Amino acid sequence: MEKILKRFASGKIDVEEACKELKLESVRKIKDFARIDINRSYRSGIPEIILAEGKRSDEVRDIAMALATAKGFALISRVRVRDVEAIKKRAEEENEEFEIDYNEVAKTVIVKKKGYEFEKIGKIGLIGAGTADIPVAEEARVVAEVCGCEVIIAYDVGIAGIHRLVEPLEEILNARVAAIIVVAGMEGALPSVVASLVDVPVIGVPTSVGYGLGGKGVAALLSMLQSCSPGLAVVNIDNGVGAATFAAKCTRRKK
Amino acid sequence: MEKILKRFASGKIDVEEACKELKLESVRKIKDFARIDINRSYRSGIPEIILAEGKRSDEVRDIAMALATAKGFALISRVRVRDVEAIKKRAEEENEEFEIDYNEVAKTVIVKKKGYEFEKIGKIGLIGAGTADIPVAEEARVVAEVCGCEVIIAYDVGIAGIHRLVEPLEEILNARVAAIIVVAGMEGALPSVVASLVDVPVIGVPTSVGYGLGGKGVAALLSMLQSCSPGLAVVNIDNGVGAATFAAKCTRRKK
Amino acid sequence: MEKILKRFASGKIDVEEACKELKLESVRKIKDFARIDINRSYRSGIPEIILAEGKRSDEVRDIAMALATAKGFALISRVRVRDVEAIKKRAEEENEEFEIDYNEVAKTVIVKKKGYEFEKIGKIGLIGAGTADIPVAEEARVVAEVCGCEVIIAYDVGIAGIHRLVEPLEEILNARVAAIIVVAGMEGALPSVVASLVDVPVIGVPTSVGYGLGGKGVAALLSMLQSCSPGLAVVNIDNGVGAATFAAKCTRRKK
Amino acid sequence: MEKILKRFASGKIDVEEACKELKLESVRKIKDFARIDINRSYRSGIPEIILAEGKRSDEVRDIAMALATAKGFALISRVRVRDVEAIKKRAEEENEEFEIDYNEVAKTVIVKKKGYEFEKIGKIGLIGAGTADIPVAEEARVVAEVCGCEVIIAYDVGIAGIHRLVEPLEEILNARVAAIIVVAGMEGALPSVVASLVDVPVIGVPTSVGYGLGGKGVAALLSMLQSCSPGLAVVNIDNGVGAATFAAKCTRRKK
Amino acid sequence: MEKILKRFASGKIDVEEACKELKLESVRKIKDFARIDINRSYRSGIPEIILAEGKRSDEVRDIAMALATAKGFALISRVRVRDVEAIKKRAEEENEEFEIDYNEVAKTVIVKKKGYEFEKIGKIGLIGAGTADIPVAEEARVVAEVCGCEVIIAYDVGIAGIHRLVEPLEEILNARVAAIIVVAGMEGALPSVVASLVDVPVIGVPTSVGYGLGGKGVAALLSMLQSCSPGLAVVNIDNGVGAATFAAKCTRRKK
Amino acid sequence: MEKILKRFASGKIDVEEACKELKLESVRKIKDFARIDINRSYRSGIPEIILAEGKRSDEVRDIAMALATAKGFALISRVRVRDVEAIKKRAEEENEEFEIDYNEVAKTVIVKKKGYEFEKIGKIGLIGAGTADIPVAEEARVVAEVCGCEVIIAYDVGIAGIHRLVEPLEEILNARVAAIIVVAGMEGALPSVVASLVDVPVIGVPTSVGYGLGGKGVAALLSMLQSCSPGLAVVNIDNGVGAATFAAKCTRRKK
Amino acid sequence: MEKILKRFASGKIDVEEACKELKLESVRKIKDFARIDINRSYRSGIPEIILAEGKRSDEVRDIAMALATAKGFALISRVRVRDVEAIKKRAEEENEEFEIDYNEVAKTVIVKKKGYEFEKIGKIGLIGAGTADIPVAEEARVVAEVCGCEVIIAYDVGIAGIHRLVEPLEEILNARVAAIIVVAGMEGALPSVVASLVDVPVIGVPTSVGYGLGGKGVAALLSMLQSCSPGLAVVNIDNGVGAATFAAKCTRRKK
Amino acid sequence: MEKILKRFASGKIDVEEACKELKLESVRKIKDFARIDINRSYRSGIPEIILAEGKRSDEVRDIAMALATAKGFALISRVRVRDVEAIKKRAEEENEEFEIDYNEVAKTVIVKKKGYEFEKIGKIGLIGAGTADIPVAEEARVVAEVCGCEVIIAYDVGIAGIHRLVEPLEEILNARVAAIIVVAGMEGALPSVVASLVDVPVIGVPTSVGYGLGGKGVAALLSMLQSCSPGLAVVNIDNGVGAATFAAKCTRRKK
Repeated sequence: MEKILKRFASGKIDVEEACKELKLESVRKIKDFARIDINRSYRSGIPEIILAEGKRSDEVRDIAMALATAKGFALISRVRVRDVEAIKKRAEEENEEFEIDYNEVAKTVIVKKKGYEFEKIGKIGLIGAGTADIPVAEEARVVAEVCGCEVIIAYDVGIAGIHRLVEPLEEILNARVAAIIVVAGMEGALPSVVASLVDVPVIGVPTSVGYGLGGKGVAALLSMLQSCSPGLAVVNIDNGVGAATFAAKCTRRKK
Repeated sequence: MEKILKRFASGKIDVEEACKELKLESVRKIKDFARIDINRSYRSGIPEIILAEGKRSDEVRDIAMALATAKGFALISRVRVRDVEAIKKRAEEENEEFEIDYNEVAKTVIVKKKGYEFEKIGKIGLIGAGTADIPVAEEARVVAEVCGCEVIIAYDVGIAGIHRLVEPLEEILNARVAAIIVVAGMEGALPSVVASLVDVPVIGVPTSVGYGLGGKGVAALLSMLQSCSPGLAVVNIDNGVGAATFAAKCTRRKK
Repeated sequence: MEKILKRFASGKIDVEEACKELKLESVRKIKDFARIDINRSYRSGIPEIILAEGKRSDEVRDIAMALATAKGFALISRVRVRDVEAIKKRAEEENEEFEIDYNEVAKTVIVKKKGYEFEKIGKIGLIGAGTADIPVAEEARVVAEVCGCEVIIAYDVGIAGIHRLVEPLEEILNARVAAIIVVAGMEGALPSVVASLVDVPVIGVPTSVGYGLGGKGVAALLSMLQSCSPGLAVVNIDNGVGAATFAAKCTRRKK
Repeated sequence: MEKILKRFASGKIDVEEACKELKLESVRKIKDFARIDINRSYRSGIPEIILAEGKRSDEVRDIAMALATAKGFALISRVRVRDVEAIKKRAEEENEEFEIDYNEVAKTVIVKKKGYEFEKIGKIGLIGAGTADIPVAEEARVVAEVCGCEVIIAYDVGIAGIHRLVEPLEEILNARVAAIIVVAGMEGALPSVVASLVDVPVIGVPTSVGYGLGGKGVAALLSMLQSCSPGLAVVNIDNGVGAATFAAKCTRRKK
Repeated sequence: MEKILKRFASGKIDVEEACKELKLESVRKIKDFARIDINRSYRSGIPEIILAEGKRSDEVRDIAMALATAKGFALISRVRVRDVEAIKKRAEEENEEFEIDYNEVAKTVIVKKKGYEFEKIGKIGLIGAGTADIPVAEEARVVAEVCGCEVIIAYDVGIAGIHRLVEPLEEILNARVAAIIVVAGMEGALPSVVASLVDVPVIGVPTSVGYGLGGKGVAALLSMLQSCSPGLAVVNIDNGVGAATFAAKCTRRKK
Repeated sequence: MEKILKRFASGKIDVEEACKELKLESVRKIKDFARIDINRSYRSGIPEIILAEGKRSDEVRDIAMALATAKGFALISRVRVRDVEAIKKRAEEENEEFEIDYNEVAKTVIVKKKGYEFEKIGKIGLIGAGTADIPVAEEARVVAEVCGCEVIIAYDVGIAGIHRLVEPLEEILNARVAAIIVVAGMEGALPSVVASLVDVPVIGVPTSVGYGLGGKGVAALLSMLQSCSPGLAVVNIDNGVGAATFAAKCTRRKK
Repeated sequence: MEKILKRFASGKIDVEEACKELKLESVRKIKDFARIDINRSYRSGIPEIILAEGKRSDEVRDIAMALATAKGFALISRVRVRDVEAIKKRAEEENEEFEIDYNEVAKTVIVKKKGYEFEKIGKIGLIGAGTADIPVAEEARVVAEVCGCEVIIAYDVGIAGIHRLVEPLEEILNARVAAIIVVAGMEGALPSVVASLVDVPVIGVPTSVGYGLGGKGVAALLSMLQSCSPGLAVVNIDNGVGAATFAAKCTRRKK
Repeated sequence: MEKILKRFASGKIDVEEACKELKLESVRKIKDFARIDINRSYRSGIPEIILAEGKRSDEVRDIAMALATAKGFALISRVRVRDVEAIKKRAEEENEEFEIDYNEVAKTVIVKKKGYEFEKIGKIGLIGAGTADIPVAEEARVVAEVCGCEVIIAYDVGIAGIHRLVEPLEEILNARVAAIIVVAGMEGALPSVVASLVDVPVIGVPTSVGYGLGGKGVAALLSMLQSCSPGLAVVNIDNGVGAATFAAKCTRRKK
């Protein structure tokens, strides 16, 4: 803007021309505001996560490699074996050296430039009710770690043996976590129990475990929504990514 | 039958006539089988319970007084104040003396001949999660008592303060109950917790407590159906009568 | 505790040290209370049942063999052919001799040390409405037998030919069962009919039989919940395991 | 058409004019076809039934009186007390004499010219499961009678006491009815039982009786749709009018 | 019974013995009543239909051949190619000669002794809305024909071109059918339109055609239940068998 | 902006000051863009409509009078009698003269400066299936007229008498309407029929008419969504306002 | 008709014969009215679209080739690879030369006589929220183009980056489109946002993208139905064909 | 414990007695652990909130006054006018002086000892979409303030005028809030938009605003669960209390 004013002051452009250029500048600013500033200042911290589901393997590969090249790393969720193979093959062909970190249980892949380090923003807790809930919990763990969280984990802590909850919960609370993610299917009661015992925000993640009426995670989600424990919020069934990004935002603000 | 045969033997009726009469007798037997025997021998123990809802007050009154006169007592559920007044007015007018026992919370009335005693068949436990669940729990209590159960009660034992469960549960188990009814609304997790801790059958009763998605008892019912605890069965939302008659049948068989 | 006191009395440790050790002891007691006592005294009778669904075959095999080695037997539900093969192969390799009892219809496997005998706690009835309901009924039968129940069975007793119900029901009642499991899909009316005829608790198991609106067991479940017969409780659709463990608890208490 | 041709033949109108008139005639015929013929020849037998619900009392009154004046009678369903009063008041003011037949239970009113006789087309059966189902059953009865059916009635024949079904069913079948309407709420099993026993078409009418999940007639409707008995069709919850008009069509065709 | 009486009269048995034998006879009669009489006299006309779905091919084959041998024919619905092959192979091996009539679209097989003739009880109409509805319509047609109905068919008569309805409807009505089955998916409006035009009972069959909300036949079923046309009843989604047996019962009664 | 530049050119402000003022100007422009321009240029044509439901009568009155004063008129939907009275009272007190146009059926009020004329943008058709659908249809009519549409109306054109559709449809099409709104409850088939016959866009409005399963407009909405007729889109149940504003946008673009 | 009249005038036929012939003519006219006129004049513009789903490949091929031969082109939606191969093979064998235009993403095939040109009726906008929504959007694009619309496209404009909406929206509005189709899955908020910004009708198309509660397009559809933006109507989930034909009708009327 | 040891050391009690007392002490500790410690150390910060709904006014009054006397204040949600009156009357009668703060919109009452000050733990943002969402938002505000949060409010920021969001959002972010509660009914899109723009956790609260399919908050809840924005979690429909306690926990941890 200063440049335009100086050119105007020096007589290189007249009032009309200056007006026009300033208007264009203003429009550019609107666009910048919309495109850049909001993105940069408001949305920082949560990297873009590529959902493999519904994309072809070559698409997944290309987006992942482009993002990893630009940002230092890329995170892909719900990958299939063929996606992983396509990415590995491409990574081997690339000049720059990438590390491929494939979590078979979580169905995630991290493509990372060698030496790239994720920032550290704090700690969260992650509790899984049953073995069938582990894949969703692991998805949450991987995403949270990429977002900079150290994750204190306690799996297989179901309500049918509620006494098993005490020890891991103490460990998590002692670590002074910013939030606790609790992953549970079937009747989904564990998040309510945890939220009644702690003073950190608890994020319930229902999983699509269970059959019959209320199966596929529906009963779990509804019972979390109906919880009478204070300080429990939920994300959708199997949405480990959503829980992890939410927890990461809680952590970031804690500092 | 003997009479027919004797009349036949004595020549009062011929073969044809005897056949016809025996056939009629046989038909009467079929009817007896259907009407009397099944009822008497199989269904004993659970008295008929009058549902006031959907009946006019004079109908409720007449059925109740007729039943009480015939059987010694009558139990009416979901009564309204006007039903109680109609019954009381009539009872005062009757020659025979009746006692009227109106439970305002349970919305039940027992009309009983003075001196009538309910049989005693054993004990059950009854646990209520929150104050809002008490009306349904009380309905179950009254019905169970009429069916002959002594009821060990623990109300206001919610999952949000799960430690409050230990003491009353021990008392119930020490009483060597035949079954435990657990009444819970909202997320309905308490029956699962109880069933994971005891070796008696647990009957979950969801209540129509709670608003929003899964409200009106739906989340509670679904989470009980999805429970991973062994030994939990359920009745419909607010069905205190159903839970109590089921528990009474458990108790009766125990002896 | 006595030991600590004695060491304190003998001057080997001072007051502070004794306090600390006693506190630790107390904490250990809390843990014991939570972990051991509740489990041992309250939950006896119902063995842990391994759900194969959602586990890999090697996981199923390892858990099953470990449990069988420790407890004398292991019961796995919803097994797949590959699970059975993995278990059989391992059992052959083991020194200790195991019997493998695979029920193809029930989709269950029992791994049992040779000579191991299940306890006997009493009898239950088991009624199946149609041929399509048999797999769920068989699952219930196997589980109930492992829990110690003798099971009196009557399959293919549908409401469309309700007269077929009389004879088997009499046999079941004469056996003085503690509870009757009734398995039915489609309109699910059979449990209501049975519950109206008997004085033992009836556990309804809807099955995922039937198509169109209310199919997959939904109509069956809802109509059981809506039943106007006293003494009927339900478990979720296809939940043979839940019905059997519930019935076993009814049986155990009967003695 | 003949008239037009004759006027053309006599020279009163020319070819062009005749064409035009014939075209108009043809259009009028299309309209007649649509409006009159279809109505008269195809839809005969089922009179128009006025639904009071959602109309003002003066509207109900005016439509009812107009129809009664034109056709000899009018039938109004779901009337409120104020509708009945409005109709009675008007009927008293009219010159022609009308009879007002108000069925308080069925919530129906028949306005009829004195001496008007409904035709007789045959018999149907009508079975009601419980006392709460009687209002819907009565609506069906009144509508069926207006449509010309003699109705053989058996109320209070529930599945909880299924033996009570035998006698009335025999009476209905002996009357050689064209169809049987079975009205049932809660679990709605009675229509299935009846359809399995008879060789006439059975029309199931679920009623909005019952609370909790599957309440308000939903379980009843679903279990009728899922019925494994042959020869059962259903109408919507509480739709006594629909069942009666359907049964009347069955009856009419029987002759 | 006469025999017993005669033996009693001739002194071969005494009063006590006669009583005992007559009682046994009476019991046998109860059983007969339940098992044979109801079946024979009330349910005549609708043959048992074997549902292949959920059965193994050898089971389907064995039941079909047994029924065909006993009754002269057997009808199997929802057959798979492997069922047909199993039946054909067996039929070739049999001494008695059977005809196999496989309808690939309807997924039905009729196994019939050569020369066996189905009875003729009357006519019904069968209207299909779209090409996707034809399999369900064909299932209805085959079943109705086996039940003795002559079926007047009009396929591909959708509401999107409602004018196509007029001609086939006239043909159907002229045939003086006892009932009309109307098969429609998606919005399911055709049965309402037909029921508003005819004086015979109309049976709506929703089909599982259509995607998105209300897809899989749900919208079709609901809109048929909500129909404001008199004389429309429905069966469940895709239930061609149910519609055909209902229509057959309508036809049988017509005579 | 020119002013700033001129002040800068004249030396009244320096570069720094000019930069700052221009930046502020730019920000103001962003805001203008967001607040004013989008509103004015893009959203023209559809006036703001005040929903009385959920507001207090004094709030409704104040917003309505403010809007009417500013824009010349105000339209309020879902008004209650007390809202109308409050508005009328205020209008009488005002200096400027307002006309109050209250449509009791549509539950709408138009407050209008005397002499204010709504623009005319074109014609739409409006078809109602039954008398119970008229309130929703009338709401649509009033809104459409305020938006500048002339509305050709045909009420009471149900699918049960589909022949009644022909004449009014011809009139509507002859008027060369831009769109047709079709309002229907119960089975909601009319919009499908209309859409199959015309080449203008048809907007289906389901109404909350009908009881039982699929009642309250659900079946109507689903069957419109499932329609196989091309050129049919829908708005939510009872949403006359939504249909009218949509139709108005269709009309506006037509010119 | 004139011919008949002339033959009558010339005495070749008498009054009776003329009457009969005129009646037949009238009937033929009714049929013509129903079959031809309505079709030709009212439904013009929207070609018949063949849905491959639920048809065999040879059926699809035959219908497509017949239609293409008769009308110059045929459009098939939801094609499978085997359909395309069948069509291509046949097209090569045909004498007349056809062009086959297969859109793999949209799952559409256009079979077109060489040189055939689609008419041009105007422009529409088409906005897609995410990459997963593109197949449905492409289906809409292909159908709209066949209907004569020029389609201005903006894909990947999600609500998570709402600023990306501004530029493409301006382009679309500048093109003076008749309607905008907005395709969105998951939370389905984009159509509401667009409708709040523009003065053309917006047609929302929910897509079956998203998992968990409200997944498969349900949340998207419901939130579009609940939109508080004026001028938004919807079609069913994934119904690109419905949206395109609706938009085409909007466009056609615009001229 | 020290005391016991000292009494043992001084010989006042022997080993056995010391053991017994220490065991009792240990049991008391278990109870303390369960009852007091968990409560005090883990659950601190969120005061108990009294739900008036489902309680009688005298119960509400008594609990509120008891809590206020014990803790210095009491917070009651969903109060009715009669509750407020009962509390005010009692407060006037009490010796100790209480302040009654009744929020008519939020339906909350705070009973507070004069001079009592709520702690201050940090700031949260609170955004409401429409005027109908204000009651739920106000409930959240009152609860959050009692929990120690300063609340930055922006009401009436709907998605239909999304540009109105920018300014208040900047204000909220500048205040460095720990979390933002976004309250929205109907299509519920606002939380998604906000979550896509900020780096703090966003808690979506659907409100029971909106009619038709997806009304009463269902569409809002589902679309929040389906949101593709990272960092959005939800509570149940109208659950302002749940959102506020969750936000308070986020705030507390931030320090």
